[in-house]
Amino acid sequence: MKKAVVLYSGGLDSTTCMAIARAEGFAPYALSFAYGQRHAVELEKARLYAPQVGAVDHMVVDIDLRKMGGSALTAEIDVPKHGESDAAIPITYVPARNTIFLSFALGWAEVLGATDIYIGVNALDYSGYPDCRPAFIEAFEQTANLATRAGVEEGAPYRIHAPLIDLTKAQIIQCGLDLGVDYRLTHSCYDPADDGTSCGGCDSCLLRLKGFAEAGISDPVAYTSRQI
Amino acid sequence: MKKAVVLYSGGLDSTTCMAIARAEGFAPYALSFAYGQRHAVELEKARLYAPQVGAVDHMVVDIDLRKMGGSALTAEIDVPKHGESDAAIPITYVPARNTIFLSFALGWAEVLGATDIYIGVNALDYSGYPDCRPAFIEAFEQTANLATRAGVEEGAPYRIHAPLIDLTKAQIIQCGLDLGVDYRLTHSCYDPADDGTSCGGCDSCLLRLKGFAEAGISDPVAYTSRQI
Repeated sequence: MKKAVVLYSGGLDSTTCMAIARAEGFAPYALSFAYGQRHAVELEKARLYAPQVGAVDHMVVDIDLRKMGGSALTAEIDVPKHGESDAAIPITYVPARNTIFLSFALGWAEVLGATDIYIGVNALDYSGYPDCRPAFIEAFEQTANLATRAGVEEGAPYRIHAPLIDLTKAQIIQCGLDLGVDYRLTHSCYDPADDGTSCGGCDSCLLRLKGFAEAGISDPVAYTSRQI
Repeated sequence: MKKAVVLYSGGLDSTTCMAIARAEGFAPYALSFAYGQRHAVELEKARLYAPQVGAVDHMVVDIDLRKMGGSALTAEIDVPKHGESDAAIPITYVPARNTIFLSFALGWAEVLGATDIYIGVNALDYSGYPDCRPAFIEAFEQTANLATRAGVEEGAPYRIHAPLIDLTKAQIIQCGLDLGVDYRLTHSCYDPADDGTSCGGCDSCLLRLKGFAEAGISDPVAYTSRQI
C-alpha cells in the first residue's frame, strides 16, 4: 500500500481529507503541528482521534510560530467573532502557515519514501487566505519536485492533493459521510470552553454549522451556544 | 532602510550573505534554527556572532527534524569523513531542509513587512543537494509570491536572493573580505571538538580550507588537524 502524508488538525476538513486518501488507496501518515496555537485542545483531540480515523502513524512536530507574531491564532489577540473584522484577509491568517506545514510534510514524505501529500485546504470557505488557492498548491508542488532527492532522481513524482479545494462545506461533509467519516471524532472550534465544548460563535464553528445545515444533517458535536 | 530576512547559521557562507545584504542596502534580520543538529556549537556561535556581524535582530526558531530521521546531521549516524560516501546526494542532506528554512523566513518576512530573503546556498560546492540549485530557488520565490498577503495585494514583490549560488568557495571568501567580513566570527565544522575547535577533516572543513587555499589566504579559525 502506498504511503501518503496527510496534514491533519483533527478538524472536519483534514479528517475528511484523510478518508479521501484512504479511499484513493493510500496508507495515511498524519502530520500535526504544535505551533503555539491558543486552541491547544485541538491538538489533544487530534492525538486522540488520529488512530480512530485511520492514521497508520501520527507525528506531531513542535514549531513555535508565536515568536513571529502576526496572528490571532498564535499571538495575544482576541479571536474575533463573526462579522467583527472586514479585512479581506482574516486576522486569524498565520503568516506562511501552509507553506511551513507543507514543507514539513515534504520532509517526512521524503523520509518515508512517499510522494503524495494531502492537504485539506478549501478555496471557497477560506477565500481570504492566499495559501488556500489552487495556484499556491501548484507552485508548492513544483517546488517540492525541485527540492528533493526523488524530484531529482525520479522526475517530478510529488503530488500535492487538495481534494477539498473546490468543495463547499456541505459538499465536504457529504463526501465524508459517503466515506463513513464519524464527525463526532472531529474538532473545529477556534475558541472552545475549558472542557473542549465548541463555542458556536467563531468563524470556524459558524462555517461548520452552516455546512451541516446546508447538508441537511445535524452536527454531532456539542456547542456552548448555537446561532445556527 | 529596507529589512531583509537572512538565513544565518553562523557559517562562512551565511555570514558572507549577510554582508552582501547589508552592502545591497538592507537591514538584516538573521534567522537560525535549532533543528536537533549534532553540532549544537554552531548555534551557540551563531548567537554570539550575529550582532557582531551586523544583524539588527536574530531569531532562533526551534524545530525538531530529528523526529523525521533521514540524515547524519540530525540522526544517530556518524558524519562521514571526506571520501567515505559515493552517493550522488550526500548523507548529510536533511530532507526538505531549505524548503522548511525558507518557509519560516517567509513567515517572518511577512510579519516584518519585508519582501527580501537571503539564503547562502551554493550550487557548485553543494551540487549534490537538490535544494541548492537555481531552479529550486526560483520555484520557491514563485510559491512565496502566491502564499502571502503581500503576494496577493502587491503583485509578487518577494525576492529570494541567493548571491553565492554560482560562486566558488574562494570567490565567496574574496567577496566577503572585500566587504570587510571577519572570518574569525564564523564556524563551519560538522564535527567540532568539545571546545568548538574545527575538526579539519569533515566535508565542510575541507571545502572551507580549500576555499581559503585557493583564495591565497590563511583561514583564521583553529583546527584540531588540517589536511590542507
